[in-house]
Amino acid sequence: MENIIEVVAGIDIGGTNTKFGLVDKKGNCYCEGSVPTNSDRNIENFVNELSKLIKENLTSQPDLQLKGIGIGVPNGNYYKGTIEHAANLKWKGIVPLAKLFKSHFEVPVALTNDANAAAIGEMVYGGARFMKDFIVITLGTGLGSGLVSNGKLIYGHDGFAGELGHTIVRHNGRQCGCGRRGCLETYASATGIRRTVFEILSESMENSPLRDISFNELTSDKIAEAATKGDVIAKEAFEYTGELLGQKLADSVAHTSPEAIFLFGGLAKAGDLILKPTQQSLEKHLLPIYRNKIKVLLSEMGEINAAILGAGALIWKEIEQN
Amino acid sequence: MENIIEVVAGIDIGGTNTKFGLVDKKGNCYCEGSVPTNSDRNIENFVNELSKLIKENLTSQPDLQLKGIGIGVPNGNYYKGTIEHAANLKWKGIVPLAKLFKSHFEVPVALTNDANAAAIGEMVYGGARFMKDFIVITLGTGLGSGLVSNGKLIYGHDGFAGELGHTIVRHNGRQCGCGRRGCLETYASATGIRRTVFEILSESMENSPLRDISFNELTSDKIAEAATKGDVIAKEAFEYTGELLGQKLADSVAHTSPEAIFLFGGLAKAGDLILKPTQQSLEKHLLPIYRNKIKVLLSEMGEINAAILGAGALIWKEIEQN
Repeated sequence: MENIIEVVAGIDIGGTNTKFGLVDKKGNCYCEGSVPTNSDRNIENFVNELSKLIKENLTSQPDLQLKGIGIGVPNGNYYKGTIEHAANLKWKGIVPLAKLFKSHFEVPVALTNDANAAAIGEMVYGGARFMKDFIVITLGTGLGSGLVSNGKLIYGHDGFAGELGHTIVRHNGRQCGCGRRGCLETYASATGIRRTVFEILSESMENSPLRDISFNELTSDKIAEAATKGDVIAKEAFEYTGELLGQKLADSVAHTSPEAIFLFGGLAKAGDLILKPTQQSLEKHLLPIYRNKIKVLLSEMGEINAAILGAGALIWKEIEQN
Repeated sequence: MENIIEVVAGIDIGGTNTKFGLVDKKGNCYCEGSVPTNSDRNIENFVNELSKLIKENLTSQPDLQLKGIGIGVPNGNYYKGTIEHAANLKWKGIVPLAKLFKSHFEVPVALTNDANAAAIGEMVYGGARFMKDFIVITLGTGLGSGLVSNGKLIYGHDGFAGELGHTIVRHNGRQCGCGRRGCLETYASATGIRRTVFEILSESMENSPLRDISFNELTSDKIAEAATKGDVIAKEAFEYTGELLGQKLADSVAHTSPEAIFLFGGLAKAGDLILKPTQQSLEKHLLPIYRNKIKVLLSEMGEINAAILGAGALIWKEIEQN
């Protein structure tokens, strides 16, 4: 009799592509694949296609036994298993995603938003393995966050807790996609730092290679590259981004007093360029009782598998608790 | 054989007085008393005196059986059972309060800060009885807060979570006792609204009975009284206080997404004067996904017993969980 390996399916639904993998409890990945998210098919067909691929992978590796399905998706409601009014997905209104997957598989299904999945991934497989109180900040196009307290993710009453990207860092500040002004993600995100570069370019006389790049062509990678080569504008943009992020994280510390704050995602790839000014600013802005206690760290989850592992970790946690 | 009534001692240590009571699981109080906090005796003698009083009450009511001791105290560290560097108490440094009580009583002892005790009181005896995610804001001399998520108080890594009074509502705003600027409690508290009255008096030409009262004589009760009589300055001060409190609570909602936020303490006694502008401002400043979901309510704990009941509820919760 062969050895059975228990796995879960981790699914990460992004605006453009959906990635999936079969993951065991230790984080070993037995297959990976992806399908486009935004093609013409409706949600039922999308789930059908994805389910078929997962089943094919399970059939070709008969020692794998599926125990559950975990999904990270924008505006994922953990309590209801639904996607609710996700601006970046074409399926509008309230989508009963967990229910749709359950019609294909007789295993538990859980979903949450991508930043919460990243936080659970960090707790199960990453740098927060021995922590009960921490925050994960994802610095991508926007700023996402997952808060863990007493060893549990904070979902809140409605399942939508942890939107630190939409806390206000500057009263009447930059315009935000949410319709308000001064949200943290308008400063601290891959998009935010581009806006900051353009603000500094407008104010400063300093020469810079960034003056040859349009707003739409500019990326946080290009800003990081310029900063590494010593460009003054790019370096100042990282300083300012870390300054505002640290300032606002001091408020978050006053809420949940975490052991550590992890930075993850595109902008976090810049490493010390973003980490150092964030650490310094946080420390400077903390209420005295919190000083010299809170670590700001780079996520230990690799970029490639993190989303799949995070979604997988979500459902492993569920299985463990039941 | 007579009926045994199980009770806990609820102790509320304030800067001036320490109140205590014996409380059963339903919140019935079998005795109450108080001793001065700030007399000349050291901490050992303070605990001796208080323990003696509790024992006398237990002896005189032999049907009462003591099951535990719960304490609300400024800078109380739940994890360690200590008071740590409390600015308003004369016992300096780190005081092993739980240990001292345990030398007098062979029952479990738990302590936390007064706002956390208020939150647990609200959960056990008050308006949050059927809630798992809520926030209690205490509007006294300062602004305290207790956050409950997944049915548990958020203590944080170090035991000091929930200092919303020291989140920043105005960058470079009013000077705060903590050494920083713009903290929420410099606006939203009994002291904050006095500062606001004086700011408005300085800017406005409006006549007001508040012009006859010195800063040190002014109280939030007097401001509420003036507002009730139609004084424009006093009404504007409440509007502004609620506006800033609601603005900042929108940030807190983006952290823990509570079902309700309860207002408690001296300033909350003003009722609708503070409640209405806070509700309106919160709703206006919320991220769209949170709108029309979050209740802002007055605490259902009476002023008189709330602190004792809260401290009692803290230890009842502990006993329940073990």
